[in-house]
Amino acid sequence: MERRDDDRNLDEYKNGNNCKNGTDRVVDDGDNEETNGESIYRYSDGSVRLRNPNIELMDQDILYHLALGSGSHDLQEMFGDVKFVCMGGTPKRMENFAHFIMSEIGYKLPPGTQLQDISAFSYRYSMYKVGPVLSVSHGMGVPSIGILLHEIIKLMYHAKCKDPIFIRIGTCGGIGVEGGTVIITDDAVDGLLRSTYEMTILGKIVQRPAKLDAKLVRDLKSLHDLEDPYETVVGKTMCTYDFYEGQGRLDGAFCDFTENEKMEYLEKLRDFGVVNIEMECTTFAALTHHAGIRAAIVCVALLDRLKGDQVNTPKEVMNEWQIRPQILVSRFIRKHLAQQGKLKSLMQQHGSIRSPRRFKLVQQESEAHE
Amino acid sequence: MERRDDDRNLDEYKNGNNCKNGTDRVVDDGDNEETNGESIYRYSDGSVRLRNPNIELMDQDILYHLALGSGSHDLQEMFGDVKFVCMGGTPKRMENFAHFIMSEIGYKLPPGTQLQDISAFSYRYSMYKVGPVLSVSHGMGVPSIGILLHEIIKLMYHAKCKDPIFIRIGTCGGIGVEGGTVIITDDAVDGLLRSTYEMTILGKIVQRPAKLDAKLVRDLKSLHDLEDPYETVVGKTMCTYDFYEGQGRLDGAFCDFTENEKMEYLEKLRDFGVVNIEMECTTFAALTHHAGIRAAIVCVALLDRLKGDQVNTPKEVMNEWQIRPQILVSRFIRKHLAQQGKLKSLMQQHGSIRSPRRFKLVQQESEAHE
Repeated sequence: MERRDDDRNLDEYKNGNNCKNGTDRVVDDGDNEETNGESIYRYSDGSVRLRNPNIELMDQDILYHLALGSGSHDLQEMFGDVKFVCMGGTPKRMENFAHFIMSEIGYKLPPGTQLQDISAFSYRYSMYKVGPVLSVSHGMGVPSIGILLHEIIKLMYHAKCKDPIFIRIGTCGGIGVEGGTVIITDDAVDGLLRSTYEMTILGKIVQRPAKLDAKLVRDLKSLHDLEDPYETVVGKTMCTYDFYEGQGRLDGAFCDFTENEKMEYLEKLRDFGVVNIEMECTTFAALTHHAGIRAAIVCVALLDRLKGDQVNTPKEVMNEWQIRPQILVSRFIRKHLAQQGKLKSLMQQHGSIRSPRRFKLVQQESEAHE
Repeated sequence: MERRDDDRNLDEYKNGNNCKNGTDRVVDDGDNEETNGESIYRYSDGSVRLRNPNIELMDQDILYHLALGSGSHDLQEMFGDVKFVCMGGTPKRMENFAHFIMSEIGYKLPPGTQLQDISAFSYRYSMYKVGPVLSVSHGMGVPSIGILLHEIIKLMYHAKCKDPIFIRIGTCGGIGVEGGTVIITDDAVDGLLRSTYEMTILGKIVQRPAKLDAKLVRDLKSLHDLEDPYETVVGKTMCTYDFYEGQGRLDGAFCDFTENEKMEYLEKLRDFGVVNIEMECTTFAALTHHAGIRAAIVCVALLDRLKGDQVNTPKEVMNEWQIRPQILVSRFIRKHLAQQGKLKSLMQQHGSIRSPRRFKLVQQESEAHE
């Protein structure tokens, strides 16, 4: 149960036995690309390959926390067309996003159907599917999103999804930015300002690079509309394991530091380039990078931590703020689908509602005769 | 952003400036007891005192993740009678526990009322109140239960609760015990087998002792009934930040170790006295201990990790297993209330249902005439 420091990890990596001792090497995208299009991340048809040889040898793989299984469900039939996996903290926000993106990409449900929470029976996460988009809640914190990522990455593999993009749509505390500001993460750092995700495997400390896709950051940033009545900024995001003491808040059940010490700390973070603090970015960046999956994080700041600790903006304002990252991600998904010629075909689908105005009237009439 | 090791922390503590640098001292229960009954944990009337001087100076305290506030709610009126705070992972399990404990302690709701999820509008945790018992979901993992603990401890303070007892009712992977075994934690250890909860405060590593109440362990163990068709054991519980690689599972999205290495690791854990692995125990033990709140953890094992990784027991069996810790905790609560003469008064309350059999008949009759 010894603790290895970075240098030792590096030495072991240099000695070439990084796999055996559970330490991790920094892997750059494409380094392992082979001539036939296969890599450690992808099969030759572009579908997701797992960095775990055990899964394909298993009779069935139960994705316990998603209430899905490779033996019980035809995962390729259900999820084979997924191109975007969008994640956020609460079930409610991700249900809202599912309806929002459905309207934005013009996706039509068959008559007499409604969206269903695919993972309802897990009682853990909520998952909605809108054509090529999955909208999933991840709960709060690194362990919760970590479980989800393992199972969603395995889902991508079982479903033979091709080059899926993962986007976290979150909320956060801002550092030196107004509440309502949209923040795209270009570097995920931990509480010690390291761009890594540190974990314990078989009693040994392992560090994985918490890298996000630089092109996605640029693409998302370019979709900020100058007419948006708020700023969209790019910067470092710090990940913590605690909302109160771990984020330097004075208002937890415990507080051993002074307001001056807190401010000194937050200013140090700002000087380092940290624009926001949340609770999932390092593991989200590290696990997607380790799987060779392009990923991005777009959050909205609920407050400026340089001005206070408590989140006390009115609910209506906060609800409007929470839609802002969804709007940016929706623009990205629309653009992506349009480039592949897929948006038009979605938009041309016939829905069951011919006139939304008359539909509403009929509903009201029907209610009145209850 | 330097990393302090244990020895440096200890030196600084010896030099008496442990509060200033954010490090933590080991506090034994009762050490700070003063003659008038006050302590760092309690006011003289036994109600919960916070180790944070800022809270009482605040105009209002918003318990953001519970959808409650000290300015918007009369928290003492709502929660002042709470004696037991029971926590578990999923909203569904804790809703079930609320109904179960209501029947077990004979608590009657006023006619025409039903239990309501008090924190529904947080979209994060679910909280039910059944007389002296709170039943709250904590989500998955250390950060999620940590946020809840900060806010529930503050709730105890605002509500002036007297000597509340916190009990986590969980699920876990067993080490060398059959699926369905009930496990009471006597020592919470982290992934490096330390009985501490390590956290980062203002960029510095802090360790807090993850201590549980030894008497509660004995009391709970003594309530195992010899006729229970399962074992109830006491042992060390390991807390991890990940369900897959972090618990030595071979079936995550990634796996860099062999089955032999995994088994060697699990056997090492067993030899150290670890009986089960879950994802919340260190922070639960450390934060309750830091607040001077007596706390216990009772989990049921969903499988024996020495025999496999996947949770694939049928749902009905698993549902029966998940009730086992609830039964033990219910016996404890009943005994505690009975000792204080409170169970009888609850049991004597008049409910609105005079004959459950006839009630059912009326319901069925009513349904048939829909």
